[in-house]
Order: sequence, then C-alpha cells, then structure tokens
Amino acid sequence: MKMPDSSKALRRSENEGAPNPLAPPAPRKPATTKVAPMAGNSSWHVKASQPVHYEVRLCHRVFDVDRTDLLDAGCPGDGRAPRRFVVVDEAVDRLYGADLRQYLDHHHVTHEIMVVKSGEVRKEIDVVLRFVERLDHFGIDRRREPVIVVGGGVVMDIVGLAASLYRRGTPFVRVPTTLVGLVDAGVGVKTGVNFNGHKNQLGTYAAAKLTLLDPGFLSTLSRRHISNGLAEILKVGLIKDEALFGLLERHGRLVLDEHFQGLSAEGDSAATAILQAAISGMLEELEPNLWEETLERSMDYGHTFSPSVEMLGLPSMLHGEAVCLDMALSTALAYGRGLMDEDECGRVFAVMSDLGLPTWSPLHTPEVLMQALHATVRRRDGQQRLPLPVGIGKNLFVNDVRDEELVSAIELQREMALRGSLEVA
Amino acid sequence: MKMPDSSKALRRSENEGAPNPLAPPAPRKPATTKVAPMAGNSSWHVKASQPVHYEVRLCHRVFDVDRTDLLDAGCPGDGRAPRRFVVVDEAVDRLYGADLRQYLDHHHVTHEIMVVKSGEVRKEIDVVLRFVERLDHFGIDRRREPVIVVGGGVVMDIVGLAASLYRRGTPFVRVPTTLVGLVDAGVGVKTGVNFNGHKNQLGTYAAAKLTLLDPGFLSTLSRRHISNGLAEILKVGLIKDEALFGLLERHGRLVLDEHFQGLSAEGDSAATAILQAAISGMLEELEPNLWEETLERSMDYGHTFSPSVEMLGLPSMLHGEAVCLDMALSTALAYGRGLMDEDECGRVFAVMSDLGLPTWSPLHTPEVLMQALHATVRRRDGQQRLPLPVGIGKNLFVNDVRDEELVSAIELQREMALRGSLEVA
Repeated sequence: MKMPDSSKALRRSENEGAPNPLAPPAPRKPATTKVAPMAGNSSWHVKASQPVHYEVRLCHRVFDVDRTDLLDAGCPGDGRAPRRFVVVDEAVDRLYGADLRQYLDHHHVTHEIMVVKSGEVRKEIDVVLRFVERLDHFGIDRRREPVIVVGGGVVMDIVGLAASLYRRGTPFVRVPTTLVGLVDAGVGVKTGVNFNGHKNQLGTYAAAKLTLLDPGFLSTLSRRHISNGLAEILKVGLIKDEALFGLLERHGRLVLDEHFQGLSAEGDSAATAILQAAISGMLEELEPNLWEETLERSMDYGHTFSPSVEMLGLPSMLHGEAVCLDMALSTALAYGRGLMDEDECGRVFAVMSDLGLPTWSPLHTPEVLMQALHATVRRRDGQQRLPLPVGIGKNLFVNDVRDEELVSAIELQREMALRGSLEVA
Repeated sequence: MKMPDSSKALRRSENEGAPNPLAPPAPRKPATTKVAPMAGNSSWHVKASQPVHYEVRLCHRVFDVDRTDLLDAGCPGDGRAPRRFVVVDEAVDRLYGADLRQYLDHHHVTHEIMVVKSGEVRKEIDVVLRFVERLDHFGIDRRREPVIVVGGGVVMDIVGLAASLYRRGTPFVRVPTTLVGLVDAGVGVKTGVNFNGHKNQLGTYAAAKLTLLDPGFLSTLSRRHISNGLAEILKVGLIKDEALFGLLERHGRLVLDEHFQGLSAEGDSAATAILQAAISGMLEELEPNLWEETLERSMDYGHTFSPSVEMLGLPSMLHGEAVCLDMALSTALAYGRGLMDEDECGRVFAVMSDLGLPTWSPLHTPEVLMQALHATVRRRDGQQRLPLPVGIGKNLFVNDVRDEELVSAIELQREMALRGSLEVA
C-alpha cells in the first residue's frame, strides 16, 4: 500500500550563476517559500539544478614563460603568491619536466610536482589515494589553487577522479599531451580508474575548469599514436561533419607526416582546421548529454564492437585502432543496408589507410563480434543502439542487426580492406 | 599574454526532464547549432545543467510486508523478477535483519545482504571497495535495481559514496535508522569517508533517489542518541522556525521519553509535527545550496566551534552534543550583541536541558575555542561567516568576533548553564 500522495514540491532552485568554485561565493538566496509542517505532508520532493561551465582552449607553447594561460588557468589573479600542485606522467616529465619547472620558477609559483607512471595498467585507485595524501600534505586553497595535470588520458582520468573526490570537489586544470587527449579524453568530463578487472569501473563526471590544448606536445609523440588519435577525429567526420572528412581526405596524410606541427603552409592550416573541427564536433555531441542520460550517442560510433576486440588485442592494439576496425565494419553494415554507396565506402577505407589505421584484423571473427555486440547491448540497457553512417557526415541508430547480417558485413569488410591498400592490425 | 578572446559559446543545454537514471532514456536532442571550425576560434565554452530530483518520504513500518514503499523505491515496476543488493549496518542487522529478510522473501526479491560494521572508525575507503567488489559480483541492472542501504549516518555515507562511484553513478535508496539519519544525514546529498586523518576527506554530492524515513527504528535507539538527533532539530528551530522551537519547548521532553513512538496522543501528534517541521526546514535550507557553493549556511549554526570540540571529546562525545555546546555558546555571543534578550536565552538553555543535551563542557576553554574558530575560518575561505541567532527563529552572519568577545561569551555560557538545570558534557 502506498502512502497517500500528499507530496509538496519544494520551490525549484534554478541557480543561474556559474558554479565556479574559484569565484567568490554568490549571495545567499532568501527562502521564498516555506514547506509548513502539516498533517498529511509525508513526502518532500527536492529539485535543483547544478550548472556546469568549463572551457577548452587551443593554446600554443603552453610552457613558454611569456604565456600566462597556464598560470592564470582557473584562477582569478588576486596578487597572492601562487601555489600549484602539479601531476605529470613519467614520459611527459622526461621530455617536458625541465620546461615545466622553468615555467613555474619563472612565475614564482610555489609548487610540488608529482610524477606518476602512465599506462592503462597503473590506472588504479591506489594512485588516486597516493595523490590525495600528497595533495593534502602540500595543502591548497580550493578556491585559488587548482590542481594541474599534464599527460595522456590515463593520468588525466586518475587526477580528475582524485580531484573530484578530494573534499567533495577540488578544481583542476588539464594539459593533455597526446592526440587522443587533445580531441577526446581532454574535452569531456569523465574520470575513472579500473577496478576489479573492469575498465573505468569507479569514476565520476567532473569537468576541469579549463583544458589547455597545445599541439606542440605532438611533435614528440610516435607516428602510431598520432594515427591513434586520428581515428577519433575521423569518427567525428564520418558521423556528423562531411567537411572534416574532406579535410582528412585531402590533408590527413600530411598532418600525420607533420605530427600536426604545421611544417608546411598547407600542413599548418590543415592541422588547425582539423583540430578545430574535431573539437567543435566532439563538444557539440557531448554538451547536451554530459552525464550520459541518453544511451543513443553518435559518439559511440566505432565503440560498439571495439571494446571486446581491443581487450583481445592488448597489449599490442591501441584504442583508436580497435575503433577504426569497428568503423570499417559499420561502414560495411551501412553499405549492406543501402545507407552508403560503393564510392563512399571506398573513400572511407582509403582515408583510414591514409591515416595509418587498420581496416581489417583477424580478430574480426563472427564469434568475437557477436559476443562483442551482446556485451554492448547489456551496457546499452538491452538495445543495440548501433550508430551507422548514412553516406558521409550523417548517422542513424539501428537495433535489429542479426547474426547473418553481421557475418555478411564481416566478409564485406575483409573484401573492402583487400581492395584498398590493405592495412591489417 | 592571453590568447585573443575569440570564444564561442556552445548552445546552452537545459535538460528539463528529470535525470532519473532508472527512467527510460529521453529521446536524443537534435543538434540545433553548430560550432563551425573557423580560423581564430581557439576557445570553447561548454555550458550545461544537471537536474537533480529526489524524494524524502515519511513511511511507517517500512519492513511490513503489506507496505510496498521499499519494494517500489526508485524503480518503476516492469514485471521483471526484482533483485536487490542491500547493505545494513551490524547493529541494525541484529535488530531488524530478520524483518528485512522476511520482507524481501515475501516479495520474491532475489537479494544479497552485506553487513558492515558501523562506527566512525570504520568509515574508510576499503569498505567502499569491498562493497563495489560484492556488488559487481552480484550484478545489477543500473536502471531497475537500486542499491538499498539501511542504517545510520556512517553506513549511509559509505554506501552513498560507493554507489556514486560505481560505473559513474548507480541509483541508491536510503533507510536511515537513527534520529540524526532521519532529520540530517538522510535528507541531504553528501557522501564521504574519512581519509588521512580527516573527516569526510573523500566524498561526492550524490542524491539517493528516495529516502524512506521510518520513526519506528527509533524505538530501539538509546535515549542519548535520541537527544543527539534532537540537537539538529533544535538547530532548525533556533535559526529559522520559532514554531518548531515552541513544539520542542512544549513537547520536547515527551517525545524524548517516548522515543518518537507516539505512545500518548500528545506525544504522537508532537512527534509527527516535530519531524515534519525539522525535515521541511532542513530541506528548505539545503535545496538552494545542494552543492555548497555558498559558504554562508545557516545550517552551519552549531557547527562553527563544534568540529574541534567534538574531536577532543571523542570517543565519548556525540556529534549532537558538541553541536549543542556550540549553539549554547553562540546564544551567549548573540546575547552579548543584543541579538537576544535574557528571557530568550533562558528559554533556549531550558529546552537544551529538556532534550537531554549539555549546555556546558570543560572543553569550552578560550584556547580550544579560539583555535576552533581559526580552523573554521580556513574552511570558510578566510571569513568567520558565523551564524548567530536573532531572537528565536531568525539568524544573521557575523565576521568580526574578536578574542575578547569570545572569552566573555564563554564565561556567560558557563553562567547561563549554571543558572539553568546544569548539564555538563
């Protein structure tokens, strides 16, 4: 038996102001209504709305002492002597640690730099706890001294989680150093660590106040990791931005060759245009669904079959490679349904090869991919919600892919890959 | 040098729908604007708003098999066989474990019950991790099978944190079993565990979908723990609800004697009225400031000096006792400033004694309290933001309490306590 519905909603609180924890506190809102204690009032409904605002900024030469983006990041200058707790991953420290220290010293920033091992295998809760211990020992003013993290997706995810837990939320600033970090991990709000054998089993949604994207870090990134990031950029082009696809078609190989460093005039303008389009497209998709209430996400393109394939392909396979294999398979599925024509499929496979990405893998067996689809359906609340491309630059979701269709598409993917300049993962 | 401000705001996402993770996904919003990749667009501002909606419901005899509040909690009935992961604290399991199991069995709920040790000392991250391991092994459908936690504030805080981290957020339902849980810990959104020697150093803001408040659990609570909860109720009366203070003045001793069980007609209606007023008042203050952006919180009344005093008084002192001592001191401070008259002070001290709460402690030395105020100023971003009562039922904030004023108020508190029926902690 239910209690009689004598609910009385509390007033709705629309916090219009920005929630910036670094800003001075907003004036306290006066109570405008009152829920009186009255007989029968046995239920209260609390409604509130948490505004989130964050910035992603392209910023060249972030450790150049003349640039104050990093110094001012997430922090209104107030004349006090600055203090910063900085986390960098080991590889970044080796290459850029001296620049970072010089930058902080030049600006008289009292700092502690914590160096953590990178790699998926170290994405564990104990690193989060070690971070909190060190941060607590260093001591920060939560309103003026954001934590800074410099590194790839793994260390950004760890520090994001730690910062979101420390005193129920401590501001942080990110400086991604990989292409995946620049266009994917570094622009969203997901944090997490692996636990109990599962990827990102513990995590939060927490936005960095500011993420500074400096393509300069890509100069020291391996060519294969540039390709890895290009897979996520290609995804944006395929599902929603034909112009971005065109840029990759015309200049993709060049920006890969140049590591986005703009060594030629063509490569320079292409690198900028490609990064801007990718980040814009990514944020347009993320913003209306920051907390992932919606399970039909076009940004899941390439992420339906790939989680299982990536696990099987570890440690040699990179995330973007598994994603590209998935996009190639989905292209074949789209062709089979008449959503793409042969010319479009050929262009897609050609760009994948141009970008140094695989279009076929022996791991793409019917058994593996049926299992992979099954696992994804569980994560997507019982439906496939499989994004398929419609031509180039559009997409739709399907829920009715059967085993026979999948088997045909796998065969078609293999043929298309063989027809083009075959790249096997 | 700052980058040229060529920021372009993405469209604002106002998710009007409830964020209920148990509800079927909302239809995906079509992109209505497009941030084009263009030269000079070097900064993106992401703005979104996360709606939060939760219910707090008074509900008698929650484990009565005829009541479906708990069975339906946070979960739309869909005909599937129900499964629930339930966490109870040890003391609750001893007293109510059989009722709980009978309830779940009666409704054919496949369940696992995890019993955890209660007490502040066990509020640690390893309990969170053990919970996640067990929950992961049990397996739940995050949209239909909310975790249930039954117990006091400590276990609610632990499970709230664990649920908010598991897969970046898993719905949970709370059934508080202490008076503090019913009127304070159980109606807000804070979760946390102690870490590195600090209270609640790691935590999140995460709302239980539903909290079921059953005063029946108070029948087995010790009288001292009833008094403990009454301190938080008295706080609401003192700062914002003169009528609630009047209820406590007239019936406080009776509801304490009856453990809120309504053994007499007067005690019955008083218990209901007091609980409803306390919860309404608490929620009215919480709702506009769920994420604590505002540091001037009238609900901090009694929580300025008490954190340090409570730590010194452990393990014998209870939280509500420390809070009451703080409220008594603040009353003396208010009197010294002419914000309360002698009659009002006398009534306040008399009600404190009626409720079985201390009004004086030898721990209230100038040294301890100056240090305590100093520590609180650090937490409140450099300002005292000390809520003081104005008469009974109103309050204001002050920032200018000096040492001499504090020393006088301490002496005054001791005198007032001696004048009334002295209760020393």
